[in-house]
Amino acid sequence: MNTEQFFEQVLSVRLTPDREALDIIDQTLLPGTIRRIRLETKEEIWEAIKKLRVRGAPAIGVTAAYGMAVLSAKSKETDFDAFYKDFKALKEYFASSRPTAVNLFWALDRMDACAQKAGESGLSIPEVCKRLYSEADAIREEDVQISRSIGEIGFGLLKNLKKEGEPIGILTHCNAGTLATAKYGTATAPMYIALEHGWAGTDMHVYCDETRPLLQGARLTSFELSSAGITTTLQCDNMASLLMKSGKIDIVFVGCDRVAANGDAANKIGTSSVAILAKHYGIPFYVCAPSSTIDLKTPHGGQIPIEMRDPEEVTKMWYKEPMAPEGINVYNPAFDVTDHSFITGMITEKGLCTEPYGEAFARVGIG
Amino acid sequence: MNTEQFFEQVLSVRLTPDREALDIIDQTLLPGTIRRIRLETKEEIWEAIKKLRVRGAPAIGVTAAYGMAVLSAKSKETDFDAFYKDFKALKEYFASSRPTAVNLFWALDRMDACAQKAGESGLSIPEVCKRLYSEADAIREEDVQISRSIGEIGFGLLKNLKKEGEPIGILTHCNAGTLATAKYGTATAPMYIALEHGWAGTDMHVYCDETRPLLQGARLTSFELSSAGITTTLQCDNMASLLMKSGKIDIVFVGCDRVAANGDAANKIGTSSVAILAKHYGIPFYVCAPSSTIDLKTPHGGQIPIEMRDPEEVTKMWYKEPMAPEGINVYNPAFDVTDHSFITGMITEKGLCTEPYGEAFARVGIG
Repeated sequence: MNTEQFFEQVLSVRLTPDREALDIIDQTLLPGTIRRIRLETKEEIWEAIKKLRVRGAPAIGVTAAYGMAVLSAKSKETDFDAFYKDFKALKEYFASSRPTAVNLFWALDRMDACAQKAGESGLSIPEVCKRLYSEADAIREEDVQISRSIGEIGFGLLKNLKKEGEPIGILTHCNAGTLATAKYGTATAPMYIALEHGWAGTDMHVYCDETRPLLQGARLTSFELSSAGITTTLQCDNMASLLMKSGKIDIVFVGCDRVAANGDAANKIGTSSVAILAKHYGIPFYVCAPSSTIDLKTPHGGQIPIEMRDPEEVTKMWYKEPMAPEGINVYNPAFDVTDHSFITGMITEKGLCTEPYGEAFARVGIG
Repeated sequence: MNTEQFFEQVLSVRLTPDREALDIIDQTLLPGTIRRIRLETKEEIWEAIKKLRVRGAPAIGVTAAYGMAVLSAKSKETDFDAFYKDFKALKEYFASSRPTAVNLFWALDRMDACAQKAGESGLSIPEVCKRLYSEADAIREEDVQISRSIGEIGFGLLKNLKKEGEPIGILTHCNAGTLATAKYGTATAPMYIALEHGWAGTDMHVYCDETRPLLQGARLTSFELSSAGITTTLQCDNMASLLMKSGKIDIVFVGCDRVAANGDAANKIGTSSVAILAKHYGIPFYVCAPSSTIDLKTPHGGQIPIEMRDPEEVTKMWYKEPMAPEGINVYNPAFDVTDHSFITGMITEKGLCTEPYGEAFARVGIG
């Protein structure tokens, strides 16, 4: 399977060739079953977001945007006000699918602004719908470009590490991959871009932390990287220390959810542990951060709230039977914050930033 | 439940009151079901060791020793040579139950030496059997005393940390608990001894790493500590960094499998990660190490071989369905080695050892 065939099969979301429906890979079936499904109705799209068949902030945004375009095009209305009333109802409906997904609202608001602007220009409904398709395409394409830019910078780092006769060892945590985005992922973008530049899958060896409790590394990252032909190994989160000590890891790439103005980065629980270990073992640690995740209004990571999640994710989820005593207290934070002093560099689509991060962000034009 | 009632219920292995059988807690049913079972036949004892109904080096040793005593006492022979032939066959049979368990062979050899010595002294078979019971009792009692001594030293450390109005936060990894030993465990001994000295379970708050992939922390440690009335919380291994950062942890106690002459300590995979994080966050990190685990013939940890285990422990075990792509490479080391420079102190039954470990071991009389 070449790289384009891989993306054909694994892409999180795209329009069907007739552009009348969405075509997603059902992530709830991974890694056991690879099944692409067609979403035609608003209920199907809502359910796919709700049930995490499509997940990852950029992928959800693209899904919602294409959903708005596809369903608006089915409108029988000829009057904009009537059309827009249905549009707003649809927007509210999609917004209710995952009420905590900021990127979902962002994409819906952008589609809304597009519809309003088209309406104000006095365009016909078919013309308005054409604009909505273009806007959704743009949302998708912008995410592809952001990932590609991050990937090119990361690929530059990989080229500097290139060794004769053995693969570059890369560690990643959680899933900041193609499945979470429109195409290249963030933490995976350097590897996919390397393939597009002609590297073989065996030129790299990516080690995936399984990422308890939700196992995104095991279920998703190891699936997508191995499907792309990249040499891939899975390990438990607590094995990263020995892995680094044994000399197998040359570089770490992780994604992030939110970066403070000083470069402190919130990402999936366990990321700060990987960063502290990487520094101890002298391994460069990079955060792949689209500029949209950099929140200059938050001065430092201590101000990023940490979501605490359901104990059953730790004690019962996935298992044949409960793996801990009934009623045991469980500490289950979703994220942790990696101190900026443990981050070798932050790869944004606008450029590579290093300490001091405040100045670096300004220099590349963030903020 | 007071502390004695707790041990009544949770003790890994003991003789039945009639001293004609073994009474173990079936660890394969934990934490869902607490069931003590009676082992009368050699087949039942063999199967219990084989199937990990009883596990942990000291607990296996005590089981094998009592097994030899109980079954020898059922001998109909009156001639020592005939008796001893059966004894040797039984020893070989038990030795085949878990061929990698060094402590199993150690206990069997000790029982064998006892039988031989009694035979050479011309004792009657009933007298020989009495000696065998005494030897098994001694093997058990010595383990209890070792754990108690370790616990007393650890309790001294806890007393120094005592805070007004809030519990002492303790982190542990894997299960070096009562379930693995004859009574107090090693890493858990400080807490059980604290209870015996009148501390309340709420004076301590023990955080248990779940310890992937075999989940000993979730299944066993959180079960036994919470059963003893100690405030207990379970977390995934990758949450230890945030837990330490949040100030909840005052001290770390872990067990160990083997310690090199320079103090490098091999223990369950992930221990070295906990140690590196503890040092980063300024938290004291103690290894609870019976002197029998200190191997002065191994100069440093680099010479301790690391066992690699079955990929399915990571991808399939415990789960309703496989959690990783079929055939994915898996890195599944059973142990890692914590560098001595990350160990605040090594608690042996002979005394607390600190750097330089070589000198400290000699000073307390190890080696």
